[in-house]
Amino acid sequence: MYVATVDAGGTRTRFELRGPDGTVRCSHAGTTCHPAQVGLDAMARMLREGVERVASAAGAPMASTAVSLGVAGYGPGREGAVETALEDAFGDAAALLVASDAEVARVGALGGADGVLVVAGTGSIAVGSFDGLPVRVGGWGWPVGDEGSGAWLGREAVGLVLRRHDGRDPAGPLLDAAVCEALAVDRPEAIVGALAASRDQRRLLARAAPAAVSSARGGDGGAQALVDRAAAELARLANRAAEGHPGAPVSWTGGLFSAGDAVLGPFKAALDDTLVPQAPQGTPLDGAWMRAVRALNL
Amino acid sequence: MYVATVDAGGTRTRFELRGPDGTVRCSHAGTTCHPAQVGLDAMARMLREGVERVASAAGAPMASTAVSLGVAGYGPGREGAVETALEDAFGDAAALLVASDAEVARVGALGGADGVLVVAGTGSIAVGSFDGLPVRVGGWGWPVGDEGSGAWLGREAVGLVLRRHDGRDPAGPLLDAAVCEALAVDRPEAIVGALAASRDQRRLLARAAPAAVSSARGGDGGAQALVDRAAAELARLANRAAEGHPGAPVSWTGGLFSAGDAVLGPFKAALDDTLVPQAPQGTPLDGAWMRAVRALNL
Repeated sequence: MYVATVDAGGTRTRFELRGPDGTVRCSHAGTTCHPAQVGLDAMARMLREGVERVASAAGAPMASTAVSLGVAGYGPGREGAVETALEDAFGDAAALLVASDAEVARVGALGGADGVLVVAGTGSIAVGSFDGLPVRVGGWGWPVGDEGSGAWLGREAVGLVLRRHDGRDPAGPLLDAAVCEALAVDRPEAIVGALAASRDQRRLLARAAPAAVSSARGGDGGAQALVDRAAAELARLANRAAEGHPGAPVSWTGGLFSAGDAVLGPFKAALDDTLVPQAPQGTPLDGAWMRAVRALNL
Repeated sequence: MYVATVDAGGTRTRFELRGPDGTVRCSHAGTTCHPAQVGLDAMARMLREGVERVASAAGAPMASTAVSLGVAGYGPGREGAVETALEDAFGDAAALLVASDAEVARVGALGGADGVLVVAGTGSIAVGSFDGLPVRVGGWGWPVGDEGSGAWLGREAVGLVLRRHDGRDPAGPLLDAAVCEALAVDRPEAIVGALAASRDQRRLLARAAPAAVSSARGGDGGAQALVDRAAAELARLANRAAEGHPGAPVSWTGGLFSAGDAVLGPFKAALDDTLVPQAPQGTPLDGAWMRAVRALNL
């Protein structure tokens, strides 16, 4: 049997087709198909088209292809609607497995073992599994949750730049210019207009997060304080998700962690002493593959 | 000469017509005409209609009526466009005076004297005047600024409720139910859907601010910490606006301060020692009247 693995995140959707031996035959990347952004019907259509694309390129008939999906927006209260839309779209597939994008990422990062994964991209969440029971902490979304995420850090960075501009915070050497460049404005006052004109403030503000990280790395103390707070919030998600499970492994994924030690250092430092930081073993697509192997006895 | 005084805020617009002796002959209240929400043309039309309403009710001909306005959205970079729209709308009035809503509030609260006014409604800003020079601190708007405002406090309160819900913060006795009631949802998880369905998240979140204040007053420690932070942010606006002017009076206005000592107590405590808290002497409409008296030698 072939397996189409899909990681449908809030920013991008990645597709791979794997042969019966697990080797990747074909891959493809598209835009987000988050149901809150494109609707359930478009989500199902985009996923179908992406799977067909990698399957046909690899010569895999749909009747011999299992589809294992990790889907953003597959959260409490939404499962039923998402599953129905996907069952309609993949009725001719050999099998269909649906989970959240965070769940397939957790399986991939921890190699299927019990433990916690912290995801910090535009949003943030911790997902865990212990003795077959799932745990979710955070992930409440913009603008009231997603502490420590890219959108959160970007918003805090813009706020700091504006407070520096009117003198409430002491100036720093790097953050202001880096944030203006990230938001494509020529001066801090113009940020307000850019936000008002934006159709997706969350995404726009997340663009300022790398500016905060690079400014921290370059020695801007105010930016460093923000990155430390973001890392502490992400560790707090993990600490809560792993509560009662001393020795549990904690892994990480998402754009914010791609900055490396600038974020990982304070993140590991803020984890509870009993927890074991563990670099991700595999990708979300590896997780989708592992779920298929397990469920279908491949 | 008659004077039409107008306080056009981000939530409501208030109109009064005063006779030559300053007594109020007629008053009226309408919805907001903030240009960012209704556009410049609608703003001018709504202000014209409101002024005509109080003027005609008092038998005041427009040619004998000076119009003194405090307008939300009259900030750096917007003055020219706002003034042009208002000059077109009030070309037949005896005189036209335009300022920001915060500026007329400052004149009213401080009786025209030098000093600082902190405005904390849905948004927040400090405006000051010293030796004829204006000062503005904050007021950068949602979602990156307006620290300590109703929208800011409401967002923090919702975030705390959600962190309590997933166990990141310890439970408190009052805030959760009060916030759910304010947002018209039956449980914390439903807040996310209510926000997604809202066309004005800023306004919706501001509705949770009174819940935070009342919960703090009732003994919810988490809510108290949020209210203290809001009050400290508001004091920080004032401290920066009054920097270099020891002994300056600092007054306050806006919905958040209407809670009384629950907010005023920590606000006064966080003001720089050299500053003098001073209860507002008059309303924004009094300020608009005083500006007219001064400019037109009434």
